[in-house]
Amino acid sequence: MKLSDGAITVVDHGGSLGRARALFPHAPQPFVDLSTGINPHSYPLFELPATALSRLPEAARLRELARVAAGAYGAPSAENVAVAPGTQILLPRVASLVSPGKALVLGPTYAEHARAAAIAGHAVAEVDDFEALAGAEIAIIVNPNNPDGRVVSRERLLRLAETLRAIGGLLVVDEAFMDVGPHAESLAGDVGRGGIVVLRSFGKFFGLAGLRLGFALSDAVTVERLETQFGPWAVAGPALEYGIRALADSGWQADMRRRLAQDAARLDALLSRFGVAVAGGTTLFRYLRLADAPGLFSTLGERGILLRHFSERPQVLRAGLPGSQEEWQRLESALADWHARRDDGSKEIAP
Amino acid sequence: MKLSDGAITVVDHGGSLGRARALFPHAPQPFVDLSTGINPHSYPLFELPATALSRLPEAARLRELARVAAGAYGAPSAENVAVAPGTQILLPRVASLVSPGKALVLGPTYAEHARAAAIAGHAVAEVDDFEALAGAEIAIIVNPNNPDGRVVSRERLLRLAETLRAIGGLLVVDEAFMDVGPHAESLAGDVGRGGIVVLRSFGKFFGLAGLRLGFALSDAVTVERLETQFGPWAVAGPALEYGIRALADSGWQADMRRRLAQDAARLDALLSRFGVAVAGGTTLFRYLRLADAPGLFSTLGERGILLRHFSERPQVLRAGLPGSQEEWQRLESALADWHARRDDGSKEIAP
Repeated sequence: MKLSDGAITVVDHGGSLGRARALFPHAPQPFVDLSTGINPHSYPLFELPATALSRLPEAARLRELARVAAGAYGAPSAENVAVAPGTQILLPRVASLVSPGKALVLGPTYAEHARAAAIAGHAVAEVDDFEALAGAEIAIIVNPNNPDGRVVSRERLLRLAETLRAIGGLLVVDEAFMDVGPHAESLAGDVGRGGIVVLRSFGKFFGLAGLRLGFALSDAVTVERLETQFGPWAVAGPALEYGIRALADSGWQADMRRRLAQDAARLDALLSRFGVAVAGGTTLFRYLRLADAPGLFSTLGERGILLRHFSERPQVLRAGLPGSQEEWQRLESALADWHARRDDGSKEIAP
Repeated sequence: MKLSDGAITVVDHGGSLGRARALFPHAPQPFVDLSTGINPHSYPLFELPATALSRLPEAARLRELARVAAGAYGAPSAENVAVAPGTQILLPRVASLVSPGKALVLGPTYAEHARAAAIAGHAVAEVDDFEALAGAEIAIIVNPNNPDGRVVSRERLLRLAETLRAIGGLLVVDEAFMDVGPHAESLAGDVGRGGIVVLRSFGKFFGLAGLRLGFALSDAVTVERLETQFGPWAVAGPALEYGIRALADSGWQADMRRRLAQDAARLDALLSRFGVAVAGGTTLFRYLRLADAPGLFSTLGERGILLRHFSERPQVLRAGLPGSQEEWQRLESALADWHARRDDGSKEIAP
């Protein structure tokens, strides 16, 4: 097992403690990992039946999960839901639904989309103009966007989908953060008309990224094509059981949306006290733009607090939410150190 | 979520209690499920760290699993091991390593191989003559074979691999049951020379099929191609943790091989007492050939004991191993009923 360094390059990601330890070997541990947009307040863990590990996953449980997911996400029916072991593994299969042609990704965004489209044989380009997407065989949009939180309206997306459908093209909308996004802009309810794939991610909002569970919502024929690729037991027993319980738990979901909104506001207020402006994001992560982003990243990193930086955009950072009170305090104290250090620097330079 | 009934047909499998309940609605439950080749004595369950569910799987744990798997299976190194969420999901990706051409499967065998090769665009045929496989671009062999236990020697396989390699073809050897098979015939140590993919399945021997964990052993370039398709977090946290612990536990593995051999001999003796001849298999499942296979299947099914039948071959059955003492007793009593019923039938017919 070796990571590729060939034509299809490996994408750098947040969420790796191994990488954090290599970057900041002297940092106090455990790390406060704010490098992802994964909810630190996981759905409550429960005891799994032993058969969830020992037996092959049952087709009836998979159907039940598809039914519950359709309800939670607002898809027309269970037949519009393909269940997969994570959204990531879906990406090359979704990109392969269209014969190799031109793939356009609205960027900057989550880099795995461009990689997946390249794997599927497409000529891939990132564009920053939404209207340019109409020239693609496959157009890919993350909505709300990661990392900046930009939202494209459902109305504009549906117009684009219609244009693409007319030439046999496909619109892919990655709604990985739509659980906390503006639901009115979701295309989950529109997938029945064809030419649209909506991706939903279980692990982020429910804070269970290790389970590996993701969904592609689309017309029934496309769902069948995707499921054929994965075979009968693609989703593990634990993911089936957690998925069914958590996606049906609308009370927990509503409470969590409120809690995350409060936490995000608290994070914005804390950052703002130290002069860090929040330029966007969702309530699962905040998007920071500041001249001293590299200094903030490394000062916090040395104190064991990981933000997400982007090597090709040195003046932006992404910050997830702290979980415990201790994590909030460590963040506050590290921000204070960074702020003081900057003040000292200013003093040294100023006469 | 709907199962395909199109050109690429859905394959019937053992291991579904939903299907068993539909077939035998009046059977006493719980079922004694002997319809699979999954070990009823699972690797001991242990408490997972919460982070195995909550956090993204770490690249370092994946590398560790590849290293441990290379050791357990006898692959040259970790770079020869692609880790996947089950063997099943690997099949279309492995079949896609070769441009669409002629795929030949040594049959009769596990039907998903032909399905996966068809998905990859190959013209697929099943052959019963090993030598005929040399005419393929991709040749697929299950070794030892499911369901009859037939073993092809390593020497013959290597000759075939060489022939295929000369034309840019690929030999796929599914060693899903090689954990209990004749290890000397495994090709795991030979994958470095190229043109060979060996598939290994975690869930069967370790009795943890719900975890979804499988491996493709091949040359490093092919491993990289497969991993690129799956992306960075294809294997769930629980599968990583169980895989690392169980594959490193050579003591448990050796004990289990002995125990399964004893259980298989006990099953053969029991079947033989009631006049059922065992025609082959591995120590994880026995292959039965008898004129009254349909009668045995339904008599046992009505008593809540599930064998695997094959709709296209009505005179054979496959039987997995009972787990508990109670399961052995229920099997014995059901066999006695079947035997008595047959005797009654004979009496009715005989003057």
